[in-house]
Amino acid sequence: MKNKTNRIKAENPKGFKDYFGNEVIDRDNLLDVIKNVYYRFGFDPLETSAIEYSKSLGKFLPDIDRPNGGVYSWVDDENHNLSLRYDLTAPLARVFSQFQNVLPLPYRRYSVGPVWRNEKPGPGRFRQFYQCDADTVGTNSITSDAEMSLVLKDIFQDLGFSKKDFLIKINNRKILNGIIELIKENNSDFEQGQNMSIMRAIDKYDRLGIEGVKLLLTEGRKDESGDFTQGANLSEMQAQLVVEFLKSKDLSNEKTFENIKYLVKNSAFGLEGLSELENILNICNASENNSKNIIFDPTVVRGLGYYTGPVIEAELIKQFVNEKGKAINVGSVAGGGRYDNLVKRFLGQDVPATGVSIGVDRLLFALSLNKSNSIIEKGPILVTVIDRNTIITCQNMVDELRSAGIRAELYHGNSKKLGKQLGYADSRNSFLAIIYGEDEQKNNTVQVKDLNLGNVLSKELKSNDEWKKNPSQITIKRDDLVKEVKSLISK
Amino acid sequence: MKNKTNRIKAENPKGFKDYFGNEVIDRDNLLDVIKNVYYRFGFDPLETSAIEYSKSLGKFLPDIDRPNGGVYSWVDDENHNLSLRYDLTAPLARVFSQFQNVLPLPYRRYSVGPVWRNEKPGPGRFRQFYQCDADTVGTNSITSDAEMSLVLKDIFQDLGFSKKDFLIKINNRKILNGIIELIKENNSDFEQGQNMSIMRAIDKYDRLGIEGVKLLLTEGRKDESGDFTQGANLSEMQAQLVVEFLKSKDLSNEKTFENIKYLVKNSAFGLEGLSELENILNICNASENNSKNIIFDPTVVRGLGYYTGPVIEAELIKQFVNEKGKAINVGSVAGGGRYDNLVKRFLGQDVPATGVSIGVDRLLFALSLNKSNSIIEKGPILVTVIDRNTIITCQNMVDELRSAGIRAELYHGNSKKLGKQLGYADSRNSFLAIIYGEDEQKNNTVQVKDLNLGNVLSKELKSNDEWKKNPSQITIKRDDLVKEVKSLISK
Repeated sequence: MKNKTNRIKAENPKGFKDYFGNEVIDRDNLLDVIKNVYYRFGFDPLETSAIEYSKSLGKFLPDIDRPNGGVYSWVDDENHNLSLRYDLTAPLARVFSQFQNVLPLPYRRYSVGPVWRNEKPGPGRFRQFYQCDADTVGTNSITSDAEMSLVLKDIFQDLGFSKKDFLIKINNRKILNGIIELIKENNSDFEQGQNMSIMRAIDKYDRLGIEGVKLLLTEGRKDESGDFTQGANLSEMQAQLVVEFLKSKDLSNEKTFENIKYLVKNSAFGLEGLSELENILNICNASENNSKNIIFDPTVVRGLGYYTGPVIEAELIKQFVNEKGKAINVGSVAGGGRYDNLVKRFLGQDVPATGVSIGVDRLLFALSLNKSNSIIEKGPILVTVIDRNTIITCQNMVDELRSAGIRAELYHGNSKKLGKQLGYADSRNSFLAIIYGEDEQKNNTVQVKDLNLGNVLSKELKSNDEWKKNPSQITIKRDDLVKEVKSLISK
Repeated sequence: MKNKTNRIKAENPKGFKDYFGNEVIDRDNLLDVIKNVYYRFGFDPLETSAIEYSKSLGKFLPDIDRPNGGVYSWVDDENHNLSLRYDLTAPLARVFSQFQNVLPLPYRRYSVGPVWRNEKPGPGRFRQFYQCDADTVGTNSITSDAEMSLVLKDIFQDLGFSKKDFLIKINNRKILNGIIELIKENNSDFEQGQNMSIMRAIDKYDRLGIEGVKLLLTEGRKDESGDFTQGANLSEMQAQLVVEFLKSKDLSNEKTFENIKYLVKNSAFGLEGLSELENILNICNASENNSKNIIFDPTVVRGLGYYTGPVIEAELIKQFVNEKGKAINVGSVAGGGRYDNLVKRFLGQDVPATGVSIGVDRLLFALSLNKSNSIIEKGPILVTVIDRNTIITCQNMVDELRSAGIRAELYHGNSKKLGKQLGYADSRNSFLAIIYGEDEQKNNTVQVKDLNLGNVLSKELKSNDEWKKNPSQITIKRDDLVKEVKSLISK
């Protein structure tokens, strides 16, 4: 036997957490809503294993801002390099490449599950978290891009949000490529790295505003803490073109299009991007007037380096209020876009694909603030056991309640004291306790205790007799148990 | 760009597999049924992360028959030893120890999720698989043991099995300990290792019968392939006592009790074990006559070394027939029991616990054989796109179908040919395709194609015109789309 100092400390690994009770149920419910929408749109489920050969995942994360690595990897006994998946897209690329001869084309799948990131954890940022993606692989049809906005719209609506609560912003990376094409035309020593720097600068528009972005586009920017971020080294005039692009969002999609058309001039990339985007918006607005929910926003670029065409970002614009009365902006909860070179490492050729990914934790947080969506945690009805001789009847009552679809349990703890048993019921958030001792057996009755009413008093009383005098307690006929409990629940 | 030889081979790591479409949906449905029963019984969900500190899991697997190791482990950048969980019980021990001050006592939780075993894979045996457990920690009440049989009974019934389809066998390790106590009494040089050898021998009763077990209890046994298994080195007389114990199962629980009582004589362990088991069966049989489903079976020991009291094994005894007409015995699909020293390594003291675990893959296999439970895979209704000019109306039709709760998708592929598009519908198991070209637009009609009827012909026809002559195709009014599709689905 180990002595005290030899004992192992019970703790989660750093950056990981446990989810209890309603935390699990709320997430399951959210994922069920999303899965149902994906399924209704014709996507089929796919579940890959957590472990992949490291070569299949590659040694990169999709986010260019993140440090290299960030993947949990090890070598197994058979000398294979294995890794835990860091997203659901890399395994999709492997599956599509491996099974392309038997999969429908286009291949449309959704995947839901945890992913792992070997990165510095922070507040609300854990090393294991859920992703929930839908992708269409093997087509460049603009309709499959438009569908990604429609699927997000349905998810918001099925979660109980109204049309004024959310906004789906779309853009096309080709338009930005058109702008960069124009910059290059007048600049023979433009470097490839500047391309990425420009996108990173634009991605910070939300946080830093026009002035901050302009610094990042030119000589660089020092933040409040004194840290310096390298700039993209554009000239003042070149930077101005990007700034005009960012400021081109207007009151209506039509006006935004007009502004951008003026900026991209005759750039082939730019014009193609604009035409695609117009088609996408037309399809999105086909069924009903979505134009207020699905909008063209030139400032959306998405942090990922690998998008090649249309990009989407879905935002909750509803003003939430937390329990302390403070207003909370939840912001972006989902995003995605078109990416074309995902499977090249396996197949040696581009395969067009487009997809969307939900920020499950962010959306769960929003739902927890959205009162109308929250579920009140209700513990099981507790059938107490105060007398060994009545235990069979107590078991019968638990069975009867469950058969009627009511969550119920027998007290299984070691204490014979009613007070302790009701204390357990409290810790479970039970709202009713059933008491059946020898007196009740004699009279063929049952005591039903309302724990919400009796909650305060319960801490004062001790003996079994005192409990029975509690006004929150009623006596019913044994045979009426299910009927009476049902009526108390529905109150 | 990589040339062909540089391409990465797309493959699952050895021992892992991907789950597609209905494989995922069927498992989700099964897990939902089980989770609902656990919840109804008052268990709360708990979800821990896949990764734990290796010290928390220990370097052992629960099955004594398995080689040491078997766990995926590695050292992270911060020099921590991390492991993937190999079951759901070890993380429960960690959680209970870590949060005991805030958790209800007894703590009743269910957990569902994948676990990982670094072991040799085999047919139907993968390195990642699902477990689905319920446990009550912190009580030695016999009612919590009885509940484990009742929860399994409800799961079988909620899955659609009738009372003659399954059997829940219970036993008590204390009875066997009583028998071993009697053996020890007459044997001063009895070794601790013999204890385990006896249990391993009994565990093989199903497969080897009395003669095989007897060899394993005495001098050892050579199997068909010539491999020799060490015996427990009991004398003939001692082995006979164990054999009598195994043969003591009788026509009724009462008769079995009588036989065992005769064998355990005055052994304290044995008598205590018998008394507990009688109480458990009384509680199980309280509500209705479960005695035919929940039976005392002395041959049940469970392969795990760590059970200390009552043990359960649930078997499907229904004779299934596979698609080739061959009879299939599914056998054991769940099991569990009482174990008391789970948290000692964390807390330095025993905490009593009892639990049950479902063999998810085994049960899924059984359900796939159980015709009445199987779901017919139905793909989405495909709205084809044969004319760019009608695409907005096609999108409208998809929206209308989905709004009516019907799974539907627009054809997003690259082909303009109807034959190709219907081929895609086939590969998705779609049963209806919608066709809306310029002719239909002119006449305000829609073509609806029944793909089940037209399936055979479809491989012969090629031009769009020919398709329309197909008898499995009907013309309806554009405005009647949802109504007509609904009526076709319900046929």
